[in-house]
Parts: sequence; C-alpha cells; structure tokens
Amino acid sequence: MSVTAALGFVASGVHAHIRKEKRDLAIVRSVPLATGAAMWTQNRVLAAPVVVSKRHLETAEPQAIVINSGIANAATGAQGETDAIATADRAAGLLGLAPEQVLVLSTGVIGAPMPMDRVLAGVDAAAAALSPHGGDEAADAILTTDTHAKTAVSHGGGFTVGGMAKGSGMIHPNLATMLAVVTTDYPLEPGEALEFLRPAVDVSFNSITVDGECSTNDAVILLSSRAAAIQRTPATDEAFVLALRTVCSELSHQIVVDGEGATLVAEINVSGAVNAAEARAIAQRIATSPLVKTALFGHDPNWGRVLMAAGSAPFNGGYAQLDPALVSLSYNGTAVLVGGAPQDVEPNVDGAVCTIDLDLGLGDGRAGYLTSDLSYDYVRINAEYRS
Amino acid sequence: MSVTAALGFVASGVHAHIRKEKRDLAIVRSVPLATGAAMWTQNRVLAAPVVVSKRHLETAEPQAIVINSGIANAATGAQGETDAIATADRAAGLLGLAPEQVLVLSTGVIGAPMPMDRVLAGVDAAAAALSPHGGDEAADAILTTDTHAKTAVSHGGGFTVGGMAKGSGMIHPNLATMLAVVTTDYPLEPGEALEFLRPAVDVSFNSITVDGECSTNDAVILLSSRAAAIQRTPATDEAFVLALRTVCSELSHQIVVDGEGATLVAEINVSGAVNAAEARAIAQRIATSPLVKTALFGHDPNWGRVLMAAGSAPFNGGYAQLDPALVSLSYNGTAVLVGGAPQDVEPNVDGAVCTIDLDLGLGDGRAGYLTSDLSYDYVRINAEYRS
Repeated sequence: MSVTAALGFVASGVHAHIRKEKRDLAIVRSVPLATGAAMWTQNRVLAAPVVVSKRHLETAEPQAIVINSGIANAATGAQGETDAIATADRAAGLLGLAPEQVLVLSTGVIGAPMPMDRVLAGVDAAAAALSPHGGDEAADAILTTDTHAKTAVSHGGGFTVGGMAKGSGMIHPNLATMLAVVTTDYPLEPGEALEFLRPAVDVSFNSITVDGECSTNDAVILLSSRAAAIQRTPATDEAFVLALRTVCSELSHQIVVDGEGATLVAEINVSGAVNAAEARAIAQRIATSPLVKTALFGHDPNWGRVLMAAGSAPFNGGYAQLDPALVSLSYNGTAVLVGGAPQDVEPNVDGAVCTIDLDLGLGDGRAGYLTSDLSYDYVRINAEYRS
Repeated sequence: MSVTAALGFVASGVHAHIRKEKRDLAIVRSVPLATGAAMWTQNRVLAAPVVVSKRHLETAEPQAIVINSGIANAATGAQGETDAIATADRAAGLLGLAPEQVLVLSTGVIGAPMPMDRVLAGVDAAAAALSPHGGDEAADAILTTDTHAKTAVSHGGGFTVGGMAKGSGMIHPNLATMLAVVTTDYPLEPGEALEFLRPAVDVSFNSITVDGECSTNDAVILLSSRAAAIQRTPATDEAFVLALRTVCSELSHQIVVDGEGATLVAEINVSGAVNAAEARAIAQRIATSPLVKTALFGHDPNWGRVLMAAGSAPFNGGYAQLDPALVSLSYNGTAVLVGGAPQDVEPNVDGAVCTIDLDLGLGDGRAGYLTSDLSYDYVRINAEYRS
C-alpha cells in the first residue's frame, strides 16, 4: 500500500519508456488539501528537479509529487530546469493544481538530458491512472538499481503513516539520502510537517550508508492529507512521532539490506564518546570504511580495522577523540577488546546481520549507524552501470 | 639500491619467520653520525612502534631503523610497547647505539601479539647481514600485500637521495600514509631534516589514495648520513629539494600503481577552487569516491559521479564551494562539461592511466591527487586478508 495506505491519497506508477523495461514514472497526490515538508540533499550540485521543487515549496503547500527513474536530470544546465518546470506544469494542469503545488523528483543517470516527449506522455498516463490502490505501483516505478520495492506502513490510533523509498547506491546521510515519500492522514497544521520530519530522518535515513556517497537528487518528502478524523492531543502527537519514525526506520533499513551488492547488514553502535556529535562521526567513519566493509563481506571479525577507522574519524578539522587504552569492542556480543586489552576470542560473524558495539569509555556520547558490506557485486554493479 | 644508494648507509632484509614465505625484517643504518626526521600517522590509534619511535626521536637523532612486516604491533596494549622497546634495545646493543637512536616500524595485521623470539632472532640476523648493497633486500622485507618492491633514487650534483616504501592498502594521506624510508648523504644540519621532508611529503605521499584509509602505523622517515663531500649553497639546497621530491613522488606513484587490486591510475587535477585547501578537499573527495573508482575500473567516463563527489567534499563542517554553472571537466583532455554545459562527447578512457581535470571557475585554488580504481581484486584481497 505504501503511500496510499493513509486516507486521502492516490498514486500511480507507469512505464514511460524512460527506462527500457520497467515502470519509471510515479505520481503521488493528496486529494484533500495537504500540508507537507521536504529535506534535500546537501550536495553543492543540485539536480534541476531539486532546485525547482525547493522553489515551489517556498511558495506553496505541496499537493502532488511527480517522480521519474532512469534519468536524474542533474548536471543538465538551464535545459534541466526548463524540463523540470514543464513536468510540474503538465501535472498541475491535469490535476487542477497550481504548478507550485507540484514537486518533481528524478533519479538515475547524471548528465543525460530528459526525453521530454516520453516524460510528458508518462505524466499524462500516470495522472489518468491515479488510484487509492496505486501505492505499490508507485513504489515500483521509482526504483533504479534496487532489487525490490521499499514500502512501510504504521497505524496509530485513528491515523496511518505510509511510505515508499528507493535507493541502493549513492546512499549516505546528509539530510536527505535517497528518494522517499512518506504520507499520512494525521492532521498536521500547515508549517508543522518539517518539525516532525527532521528528527525522524536524523535517526533513520541520516544514519545509514551503503557507499558513503551523497547524491545530487536525494530527497525525503512528508505529505499530510489531514484526512484522519481524530482530535489531536499530546498523546496522539507522540503516537504520530513514533509511527513516522517507524516508517522512516523500516524504509531506511530496507535500503541498506538492498544496498548495491550487499550480502550483510551491520549495525554500528558507538557509545562512550565525548559527545553525540563525535560518536556520530566515529560511527559514520566505521560504517563507510572500505576495509571494515570488505572484512564484513569476508565474515571476518577483523576488529583492528574497526579500531583503525574509529581512530581516524574526521571531526572539526581534526579527528574525533579516542584513547586506545580505554576502548572496548565487541562483535555480536563477544568482546574482542576490553579497556584496550585484546581478548583471545574469535566472534561468530557468519550470519547476515552483524552488530558491532564500540565503547570509547570517554563520556556519554552515543550514535548508531546501519551499513552494508562491500562485495564483488558492488564493484560489478557500479563498474557496469552504464554499459 | 634504494636506501643504500646514498653514501654512508648499510641495510639488510632477512626472513625472521614472522611471515611464512618472505623476508619480513629489515634494518637500515647510517654508519656516520646521522640526522633525521619523521612524519607519522595522524590516526588516534597509534601502533606501539610509532609511540616508541616518536619518544626516541624526541631525545636523540635517529641512526638506525628496524622494520618488520607481517604484524603491525598495533592495538597490543602495554605488551606492544614493551616489545617495541625490546626490539630497539636489541638492535642498539648489536649496533653500538643508544636505544633512543633506534626507530622501530611495524606493518601488517592489527591486534596480533609480536612473536618476540622470532623478532629478536631476526634482528640478530639482520644486524649481521648489514651491507652497503642491502637496499633491495630491505625494500623487499618491508612489503605486505604489495606485489612488488618500491624503490627510487635521485642523484644531485655530488649527493644522492634514495628511498624505499611499502603500502598498497590502507593508503590515504594524513601526514604519513604508509612506510617509507628515504636516505641521503646530503649534509643536512641536525634539526633541519623535517623542514625538507614536510613539503616533499605534502605533494607526494599526502596526495595519493588507494582506499581512503589511514593506518595506525604510517610513517615516512628521512635520514641523512651527511657523508656527501659537497659545500652547501642555496643552489645545492634547491637541487636537494628537487631530488627529495622526486624520490618521494616516484615512491608514492609506485604505491598507487601497486594499489590493492588497482588496474588503473587516475590523476585528479582540481583548479579554480576558492583556495588551495578547498581544491585539496575536492580532489581528495573525488579520489576516494567508491562510485568514481568503480567507474574508473569499468573504464567508464561517468563524469556525473565526479561532479557528485566534487559537490559533496567535506570542508570546515560543510562542503567546499562549487557552483555547478561554472564547472568545466575533462577526461584525458576531452571536455565533457564546459561552464556547466554538458558536451555531447564520449572521452576515451581505455588506457591504464586517466587524467581528470576539474576547473571550478571560482578562484586560484589548485590541488592534485593520484588514485587507483576500485576493482574486484580490492574486495577479494581485503575480504580474504586473514584467511
């Protein structure tokens, strides 16, 4: 159901022939007047649809989103912006909206021009196909190198949060990290969506990595149809926070599991750092280390590499604080290092999930990160992507 | 000849059975009273020999270096320091030096204890084997996953600079980036070596990367026997600067060519950045991007990935400045992007060398970086390293 699980939403996914063999264009729309917010890639190179959508979001509440896969419409110069605007215009005309109420997202190859005849015909087809049952087709249409769709739904007392995401490479936290659309009927007030979205994204999409890359197109969008007939209280707000976090966390976990070439998911937990920011820097450094990730692929608890990575986590122009004599480290609950002293054990890391707990023994800073291993298939997928 | 090319040096490399099948322990010594300097890893986790050698260097001029491969003596707690000190002590006794005059370097697996009986017997054998012709054996003994030895020699007018290096994974700039010993007979004054070494290292060892990793053991050491019978002038100093830079650059180039799994060397040249520091941040980000490196492995001029990486180069807590509308980019001299406008060309990147020139059009900042591609073999080597 994904984005159509909540009341008030319709969606569709069609094959616009931007890609050869699969659905490649989706529309998500709130039928009642919606409120929403987005978080965007921090890359200095913004794709044209990101530039256009940010501008639209400054002037109007978003009501519909057009998403295509296959071509990212990034590094496409002035023509790229013209194309993104034309896409929003076409959808707005068909849906009876102002162009500014339509957001446009694209994902795929950077630098290629948009085949606008196909894109616009696809918008026509997708607008005609909009349905309260179209969530799964939309979730399929936004995929690129993903091997399966990513959807999640959480029901609160009287309201629903649902979402879809795509992303398996170029996955790295920096506000937005891929494309995700989360919809809800929880009655948010205009202007409120961002304050709910930001903390949920920080602990989910911003705490995963596949390859440390930050794309030009990443975005997470939250739309509320405000269609749930419930009276808001602090308790329902709390339930909504929880449901939103659950959906974001499930989607981001699915992204790591489906990471390009991933055979294993590792949960990196850092504690005892001097503060949360340094804990996060260290967790991120471990989660992106090619040597840690290749060792995980080899199911090798080569903890020296974790220590090496932890000791070289960039922070504030230097490295995050770490005293090797205080460090404790365990794999799947088996301690390999206690207070700096190596333990003569060989932890079992045979499974498809590996938990690495690193305690720095310095303070109260904590952070967690999900990452995948670095496999032959990651190399194959990315060496052959365009061929 | 490597470290024994310059007058006054003897060296040796022996098989101490720390590793199964190859030479694994080297000694380099200046026979005349030497002066020297070192640059060390910036990792917060320092290997025991780095801790001990830094301490020795604070109190005495270095005269000899003991280097073992196979075990890094890192994350080995108090025993590791005891072992590094015992190694220096044994060499000092055999060579008629004070323990503080001996530096100790180790490279190999992190977290394993040193087999001290074998190490000390190896020191005995290496000390007995010291010879003015031992440079190549020493260069062989320090290798780990390297596929061949790295040596370089440059002759100035009346003096010589020679060096050896090891390193093919965990290669990343941060002061020191691997092990390298450079020797010269150029008559440096005590205390002078570091000011010559630092700029040479910045443009060589600190401007290469294989996998973005910064090891716990990295070190570059410069020793001068002061044995060349020449009168120093500003002109000879300049010739020495050039020879030292040549040797450091040749060694670092050899390291990238021999990068774990490398099939291609890419030279990343960034110009037009707002300053040199931002140019360097951008060049480093491109040089370490898994997506850029896998595209290079696929001989795919997928320039969108270069742009994506350039737009997300960490700098001062944010990203280095870049305006997509001003960026020009070329592969092997063929422009794919001019002032932000994509060119409809397909550059040839079939060869084993690829030059990527990125002009940001913002200012005068320039930086260069050498990197390798990311191949199946990198994954294989690092997934199987301990098995």
